[in-house]
Amino acid sequence: MSSLQHGDGKRPVVGVVMGSSSDWDVMQQAVAILEEFAVPYECQVVSAHRMPLDMVEYGAQAPARGLKAIIAGAGGAAHLPGMLAALTHLPVFGIPVPSRYLRGEDSLLSIVQMPKGVPVATFAIGEAGAANAALHVIANLAVHDDSLAAQLIAYRERQTNVARNMVVPPV
Amino acid sequence: MSSLQHGDGKRPVVGVVMGSSSDWDVMQQAVAILEEFAVPYECQVVSAHRMPLDMVEYGAQAPARGLKAIIAGAGGAAHLPGMLAALTHLPVFGIPVPSRYLRGEDSLLSIVQMPKGVPVATFAIGEAGAANAALHVIANLAVHDDSLAAQLIAYRERQTNVARNMVVPPV
Amino acid sequence: MSSLQHGDGKRPVVGVVMGSSSDWDVMQQAVAILEEFAVPYECQVVSAHRMPLDMVEYGAQAPARGLKAIIAGAGGAAHLPGMLAALTHLPVFGIPVPSRYLRGEDSLLSIVQMPKGVPVATFAIGEAGAANAALHVIANLAVHDDSLAAQLIAYRERQTNVARNMVVPPV
Amino acid sequence: MSSLQHGDGKRPVVGVVMGSSSDWDVMQQAVAILEEFAVPYECQVVSAHRMPLDMVEYGAQAPARGLKAIIAGAGGAAHLPGMLAALTHLPVFGIPVPSRYLRGEDSLLSIVQMPKGVPVATFAIGEAGAANAALHVIANLAVHDDSLAAQLIAYRERQTNVARNMVVPPV
Amino acid sequence: MSSLQHGDGKRPVVGVVMGSSSDWDVMQQAVAILEEFAVPYECQVVSAHRMPLDMVEYGAQAPARGLKAIIAGAGGAAHLPGMLAALTHLPVFGIPVPSRYLRGEDSLLSIVQMPKGVPVATFAIGEAGAANAALHVIANLAVHDDSLAAQLIAYRERQTNVARNMVVPPV
Amino acid sequence: MSSLQHGDGKRPVVGVVMGSSSDWDVMQQAVAILEEFAVPYECQVVSAHRMPLDMVEYGAQAPARGLKAIIAGAGGAAHLPGMLAALTHLPVFGIPVPSRYLRGEDSLLSIVQMPKGVPVATFAIGEAGAANAALHVIANLAVHDDSLAAQLIAYRERQTNVARNMVVPPV
Amino acid sequence: MSSLQHGDGKRPVVGVVMGSSSDWDVMQQAVAILEEFAVPYECQVVSAHRMPLDMVEYGAQAPARGLKAIIAGAGGAAHLPGMLAALTHLPVFGIPVPSRYLRGEDSLLSIVQMPKGVPVATFAIGEAGAANAALHVIANLAVHDDSLAAQLIAYRERQTNVARNMVVPPV
Amino acid sequence: MSSLQHGDGKRPVVGVVMGSSSDWDVMQQAVAILEEFAVPYECQVVSAHRMPLDMVEYGAQAPARGLKAIIAGAGGAAHLPGMLAALTHLPVFGIPVPSRYLRGEDSLLSIVQMPKGVPVATFAIGEAGAANAALHVIANLAVHDDSLAAQLIAYRERQTNVARNMVVPPV
Repeated sequence: MSSLQHGDGKRPVVGVVMGSSSDWDVMQQAVAILEEFAVPYECQVVSAHRMPLDMVEYGAQAPARGLKAIIAGAGGAAHLPGMLAALTHLPVFGIPVPSRYLRGEDSLLSIVQMPKGVPVATFAIGEAGAANAALHVIANLAVHDDSLAAQLIAYRERQTNVARNMVVPPV
Repeated sequence: MSSLQHGDGKRPVVGVVMGSSSDWDVMQQAVAILEEFAVPYECQVVSAHRMPLDMVEYGAQAPARGLKAIIAGAGGAAHLPGMLAALTHLPVFGIPVPSRYLRGEDSLLSIVQMPKGVPVATFAIGEAGAANAALHVIANLAVHDDSLAAQLIAYRERQTNVARNMVVPPV
Repeated sequence: MSSLQHGDGKRPVVGVVMGSSSDWDVMQQAVAILEEFAVPYECQVVSAHRMPLDMVEYGAQAPARGLKAIIAGAGGAAHLPGMLAALTHLPVFGIPVPSRYLRGEDSLLSIVQMPKGVPVATFAIGEAGAANAALHVIANLAVHDDSLAAQLIAYRERQTNVARNMVVPPV
Repeated sequence: MSSLQHGDGKRPVVGVVMGSSSDWDVMQQAVAILEEFAVPYECQVVSAHRMPLDMVEYGAQAPARGLKAIIAGAGGAAHLPGMLAALTHLPVFGIPVPSRYLRGEDSLLSIVQMPKGVPVATFAIGEAGAANAALHVIANLAVHDDSLAAQLIAYRERQTNVARNMVVPPV
Repeated sequence: MSSLQHGDGKRPVVGVVMGSSSDWDVMQQAVAILEEFAVPYECQVVSAHRMPLDMVEYGAQAPARGLKAIIAGAGGAAHLPGMLAALTHLPVFGIPVPSRYLRGEDSLLSIVQMPKGVPVATFAIGEAGAANAALHVIANLAVHDDSLAAQLIAYRERQTNVARNMVVPPV
Repeated sequence: MSSLQHGDGKRPVVGVVMGSSSDWDVMQQAVAILEEFAVPYECQVVSAHRMPLDMVEYGAQAPARGLKAIIAGAGGAAHLPGMLAALTHLPVFGIPVPSRYLRGEDSLLSIVQMPKGVPVATFAIGEAGAANAALHVIANLAVHDDSLAAQLIAYRERQTNVARNMVVPPV
Repeated sequence: MSSLQHGDGKRPVVGVVMGSSSDWDVMQQAVAILEEFAVPYECQVVSAHRMPLDMVEYGAQAPARGLKAIIAGAGGAAHLPGMLAALTHLPVFGIPVPSRYLRGEDSLLSIVQMPKGVPVATFAIGEAGAANAALHVIANLAVHDDSLAAQLIAYRERQTNVARNMVVPPV
Repeated sequence: MSSLQHGDGKRPVVGVVMGSSSDWDVMQQAVAILEEFAVPYECQVVSAHRMPLDMVEYGAQAPARGLKAIIAGAGGAAHLPGMLAALTHLPVFGIPVPSRYLRGEDSLLSIVQMPKGVPVATFAIGEAGAANAALHVIANLAVHDDSLAAQLIAYRERQTNVARNMVVPPV
């Protein structure tokens, strides 16, 4: 498992995983948010279906390795988020990656409809969902990190200002 | 806003809100989990559509009141989770309450398909989703609370044991 | 909130709002109809999720500012029309803007499935819906405006004539 | 066409029509709202499919008879709202009546997806939609009727108070 | 109503109508089949929503004009087939034209879900459905026309042979 | 194949078939219409999946046996209508029988989405569709049978009168 | 893992597993078929989400334990069939168990939409699917077992005869 | 029926059939897997709707011709897999080929929702499903073929290694 890391050598607190490198177009939106907030993370391919034992190990060792959250994206019969949620008590955040023919409806239902006892926090299909999963992780971390909370509040204010300055017709 | 509270007089850390008292059948599953884990919470009706200004106030004041997470359930054109997420940087956890004719498909899409920048962590339609939203909140809190983490791990182990002891045909 | 206005300095009677400038391609169909009928209007971005307090103010002040109708377009978990309907007793007309992966099914259900007591008049997904929302506003205004009624009747007659003159195969 | 009327002998301003008397369970919610606001109305069965010429006459004569709005409910391949909208320039408000097997998804799409030029304001499937169609008609009439506007504002305030007084668990 | 005719001056026995000239791409498949079988037909735009009175006249006069079947195509909230079926006892054959955002799901349900008593024979969404509607009309006419039956049997045999001669990979 | 027949010893002109006797609740609506119009018919179970060779024989011999139309109902992966259409050039009329979990959506798509060249005239899911399939068969036969046409016109007039006499609230 | 076994002490060749004892109503249809054909099997609860490590062990040891096929049923975000398919090269047969609100649409998509490389043979939602999964396993085993093939052919013949003897109306 | 064969003159053990040569883009994925594993196969067009008698013959003679499995792909109202399953006791593996407007949702339901007694093992819509159907056939054959089992295990290991070596961002 080759791993993209970020955080100036700091121990990653967020694990970003996806079922295939073809999910990168979507999942990089999550990574971009983590980088913008300077949250140390690691990012790699962990396929539930092609690397199940690696996935078990990833889930089982995540707490000991210091991770505080796992962001997992997958498409179609998307089992990665739910299986990681089964393997660890850490909070798991799932992103439905759009599928070729059903455009992510299958991915969404495969991730969000988890049974009682094993939650996966699910976000929108595709790019928006990937960014939002990272923002939600940050919102949870910010509850115990005033500096991160201040960053998040500032991010939201900038976002509000961008929207306020939008004109129609767009120029 | 009449409010159900729990926690032996402790300040609530989780706000549980729903659009109508008719959502209680579903939402009490979230409350039951919070009680089982002794997480102080408050629970009340906050209707996005019938009490929009109360909702604005609820969202805006949530951080100052010490809440660390908001669990919001709503059905049909379910706007409560997304609007609370727009009004606070606290993490919001949304539960699609089943609707009469479309059985929660409308609720699910109205909650999960949030635009980039304003995340709502979404869970399964109905009772399972309500319980899981609370468990996910606890998982996030447990990252900074070893005692809660131990409780969660024990809860998961009991759950595993219950499943292991299931026999078929059921007796 | 930068605002596009029209009506030769007359006070706008219709407010056209949308969640993002990216909704313009669809929403300009509503504006084009209002211009064709010379109904004074204003048009701007009001994001429910990124500018919730502006949205509250917009909804709350709409009657005093002389608006007689609000046309609101949004996509995905589309909360703008329903929230404006919660904030004012003015009639709100909602347009489901097509979303990237679900093509507006999510937008449609998020707008049309409002609970009892807070109505949003909903129209077709996309361009046709935007034009029709404006035509419906005009139909309502025309009930008390004989000149506008005459314009609308003429518009409909022209439309009938265009259809009557269609030939197949098209030339 | 037997017709239920209301309004102390006043000329009806709203026409409430439905495809079959079996739609009454849903459509009476619209009638109840009109009665609560003392808006004179008429109510009858006008089937697009079984009484098409009566429907044509109903639509064509509606303006001359003094109607200011038509509320139409139908289920399945629901053509009544759209055809009335084709036959008059008066505003038409459509209610998708739940169907036996598809629970109103067919009714909703048959009503809301009108082509450019012939709008039908569409509301939620079933009872909530019927009540909301009447409330939206009232909101449009209230723009030119201060007394009705005051009634509507009071109705909304009572509704807000009911929601504010909801307690959980419900008693 | 400009009308495309075919049949060497013979009185048309099949009326092919569509809601807009933009439906031609689909509907020409029906016309091509009728031409191949030398069934006299007429073809024109009859919009249920923009030309409702023309549609009424078309339906009402169809039997007297000698038509034995009507093929009608429409998209979105597709009312043309069902309304023609309401206006005549002649058999009506409906074709769901694909819509922009919902790809014909709305068209299909608007056509097929007719209430008891007013049937529309419905075919597949798009081109295949258009061709098949014409073939089904021919199958019905062939019951009383041995020459047409022979043509149809020959057509089917050629079709079988084409399929039998298909090779994979295609060359 | 035990066969229910009707028509005072006359040779059946319509074959009514269904995949299982459990489809009878729906399919008897077709039979009731044929009886009302005194159209000689036969009715039996022909399962595409459990009696494929009988089905082939049924389809292949239908023309020689004097049938002029086949009405076929089936549920789930409903292959009976389409396969009969493949086996005969006679017109086939398909009825989607509601399925247990998907309520006939699967049946509808399995019947209506036939490829170019092999048409099945499809009707609404369930009872209404069964009655309408029979009415459509009659409409086709009536094109060459003035007496049947008169019956159909009278049936439609009675139907119109029933609708005209409907009152609301129903008594 | 308590285990139901059958086969007169013979080593099981088919493993039947399900996510919860609440799936028994559906899954017993698979067991009944295996018993009818005297195929030795074992049957137990193996929850992907609550017993993930047991599931890993079950999948990993299945070949060594002599299993030749695994039948797995699960509902909602149904991961059990796909994960077992990831853990063993043995053929896995998946059954979508109907879910409370979405009636098995989520279960179906979660099972059938597997990525290239890790197949799950999927059957219909609910009871029919469970029986058919077992019949398909038997069909595969029968390829190398003439006695089982003879049993299967006889079963199919009996089934054909039952259908042939069905009468309508049912008695 | 022109037939593509492979296997160095060996008698084919797998029959790959499809409804049209236009299905080849999808179905060649199944063929590629069979070639990779050197499983003798034949591949041809057998249209259920255009060549029903050929299909009957294909199904009826498959066991005698030595086939051990049939892989069948079809789109839209996809009847080929289910009808072949009705015609033989051999195991049938179905592939939903994506359709033009409904992207394979119709194909999937037409194949997977088979009634009790006549199973079709169904795989994902499109290319992935075609490859997986072939892999599942191989998994079944491998139960009685140690060499094939070894090949399959090696294939799966290579697949795992490919996934393990994936890096993000992809290079």
